[in-house]
Amino acid sequence: MTQTLPATIDPRLDLVLERVVDVPPSLVWKAWTTPEHLMKWFCPLPWTTVECEIDLRPGGLFRTVMCSPEGEIQPAGNGCYLEVVSNERLVWTDALLPGYRPSGAPFFTGMILLEPHGTGTKYTAIALHKDEESCKQHAEMGFHQGWGTALDQLVAYVKTLG
Amino acid sequence: MTQTLPATIDPRLDLVLERVVDVPPSLVWKAWTTPEHLMKWFCPLPWTTVECEIDLRPGGLFRTVMCSPEGEIQPAGNGCYLEVVSNERLVWTDALLPGYRPSGAPFFTGMILLEPHGTGTKYTAIALHKDEESCKQHAEMGFHQGWGTALDQLVAYVKTLG
Repeated sequence: MTQTLPATIDPRLDLVLERVVDVPPSLVWKAWTTPEHLMKWFCPLPWTTVECEIDLRPGGLFRTVMCSPEGEIQPAGNGCYLEVVSNERLVWTDALLPGYRPSGAPFFTGMILLEPHGTGTKYTAIALHKDEESCKQHAEMGFHQGWGTALDQLVAYVKTLG
Repeated sequence: MTQTLPATIDPRLDLVLERVVDVPPSLVWKAWTTPEHLMKWFCPLPWTTVECEIDLRPGGLFRTVMCSPEGEIQPAGNGCYLEVVSNERLVWTDALLPGYRPSGAPFFTGMILLEPHGTGTKYTAIALHKDEESCKQHAEMGFHQGWGTALDQLVAYVKTLG
């Protein structure tokens, strides 16, 4: 695989998941950018995504609400899209609220980078943090396993879309 | 003047400076986006701007260093551009560092909106804050007078460019 990580990646501060999946970039994009579809795969089971709002433009809202296996609704995750390049690049952050207002609880900026790879997709998910402590915390929350399992769910789900 | 403020403006959280100036949007834009020019007007005298770096693209660096009247260099202000629409709209935030990494010290998101107004410009400067306390702090730091004086300096300076 070619090296396509942004120049700003710092291994002490950032987490990266790189995979090749056997569905095309257009289906991965659709799964990430349509609430109806995103809710089907976004949380590793037995967690579920019970609400999702997407205003797909720079400055627009990305909001999800998760529910624990015990049925406990979690506080909403509110973020703001920064870059929206169809089938290629999705960037959002919880450091900003919609309309670019600074948030009270910055934790990470997320990037999903998609590249055609044969008939599939080279999929790169990145989480950027402000310091090593936040990065470590995200790793210990299970970033790699969680985002990996969610990606497996995404692939299985979009294959059912036909 | 027509109402062109973004829908996200909240008078409890945000500060707005609206003025009509007698120089065209293209000159105001040049003054805001070229380090050589920005350093000439950005700080209300007797404060001065002694360093400026501009990477004029979403995700790019906006960095300034100010110097007090006593010659004391202040800590650099580091921000990240969010929207760059020539002669119309410039948005940046210190909630993010270049490449969209969350910063450790979010304070405000800035917007400069420019509209042709006769041969001049309707100029709108906005500072968005996360809470009322940050907004009040910014107001007490002299937002209106400071940004107003800087704009006077900008106008006087760009008129010398010929």
